[in-house]
Amino acid sequence: MTFELHPRLARDTLPVASLGLSELLLMNDARFPWCILVPRRAGLREWHHLPATEQTRLMAEIEQVSEVLEALPGITKLNVGALGNLVPQLHIHVLGRHPDDAAWPGPVWGAGSPEPYAPGAAEGLMNRLRRSVDTSR
Amino acid sequence: MTFELHPRLARDTLPVASLGLSELLLMNDARFPWCILVPRRAGLREWHHLPATEQTRLMAEIEQVSEVLEALPGITKLNVGALGNLVPQLHIHVLGRHPDDAAWPGPVWGAGSPEPYAPGAAEGLMNRLRRSVDTSR
Repeated sequence: MTFELHPRLARDTLPVASLGLSELLLMNDARFPWCILVPRRAGLREWHHLPATEQTRLMAEIEQVSEVLEALPGITKLNVGALGNLVPQLHIHVLGRHPDDAAWPGPVWGAGSPEPYAPGAAEGLMNRLRRSVDTSR
Repeated sequence: MTFELHPRLARDTLPVASLGLSELLLMNDARFPWCILVPRRAGLREWHHLPATEQTRLMAEIEQVSEVLEALPGITKLNVGALGNLVPQLHIHVLGRHPDDAAWPGPVWGAGSPEPYAPGAAEGLMNRLRRSVDTSR
């Protein structure tokens, strides 16, 4: 069984980079700086089913993304979550929040409707992420 | 600065055990088997601000709790999340979901009102957790 990105994740996101373990995606929702990490492991559903070394690697990738997001203007809190109720393929949400955002203080999942980025509007954040993450395998 | 459990977490949960890094709590909400891990680190707000060794330790504690929850009858998916929009003290939610639960497939945060356990009704799950987690420091 080879890894293939779940079609719903592919549809809802913009591809940013391939990290050592995970695909880094940006949710196509301009309301929040919202990244998703998807470990390239076929059939994986739960975080703790990763072997310990890959749990650590995933955590390191979350940290790299977190550092970019927490440095964005206005961001006061990060949210990190692995839910998978709709898309069972393991994927970790890492996103920045601020007290004026569209869902504060509630969770972003299920809150309103995504607002896709205007053409080119995601490039700045995507390039910032690409400059900061480690893409070595 | 010494660690002190945030009063809202203290109010909303039942204490289960002290693990190597974290306090393990059970949300007093019988709708979901819902644990919370709170690293005993004063002033800590974000997961990735933990040093790498403690990130790994926290992940191991999440794994121990996850293994108990995923073995409960009917549980088909775990949700793991660090939000902290209301309670900034770092705390990790680890909970079991099933397709007939009160919030499926939405997130549990902000969904309806907690239903406190009847007297004694949480003991079975709390004892199961206590038997399975590592409380050595």
